[in-house]
Amino acid sequence: MKIIVNIQLKEGVLDPQGKAIHHALNTLNFNEVNDVRIAKQIVMQIDEIDEEKAKKRVAKMCEELLANTVIENYEIEIAK
Amino acid sequence: MKIIVNIQLKEGVLDPQGKAIHHALNTLNFNEVNDVRIAKQIVMQIDEIDEEKAKKRVAKMCEELLANTVIENYEIEIAK
Repeated sequence: MKIIVNIQLKEGVLDPQGKAIHHALNTLNFNEVNDVRIAKQIVMQIDEIDEEKAKKRVAKMCEELLANTVIENYEIEIAK
Repeated sequence: MKIIVNIQLKEGVLDPQGKAIHHALNTLNFNEVNDVRIAKQIVMQIDEIDEEKAKKRVAKMCEELLANTVIENYEIEIAK
């Protein structure tokens, strides 16, 4: 089963990488851009048939390793 | 308009960050994980009402700055 985890900074947490890209886009005359935020996407293949079980396992992975839950939120999505 | 750009390494391109996470997950006894790949997600707010025009502008941003098209693919998605 293919699972996609999106990890993004919580609202209010400063995103310097996003700010840098925003600035670079403005420099290249893409002035219509108002805000840029960067997120990580982790795409994994796991051996699990049950969707609920898979989501629970991946949530555990996020809590233990993948996300820094102090400053980041994560979303788990099953890729069809 | 909120636009999400997913930038991932092309197939066949080595992903050392993904490999490291895969290895770390196995060390933590998440043995059901078979493969991990990391992608970048760029979430931006742009001043544009027309979806087609917005997509074209963002594709241009990807070509010029956001993606390294030699090793990366990008997908543009309008967030509703």
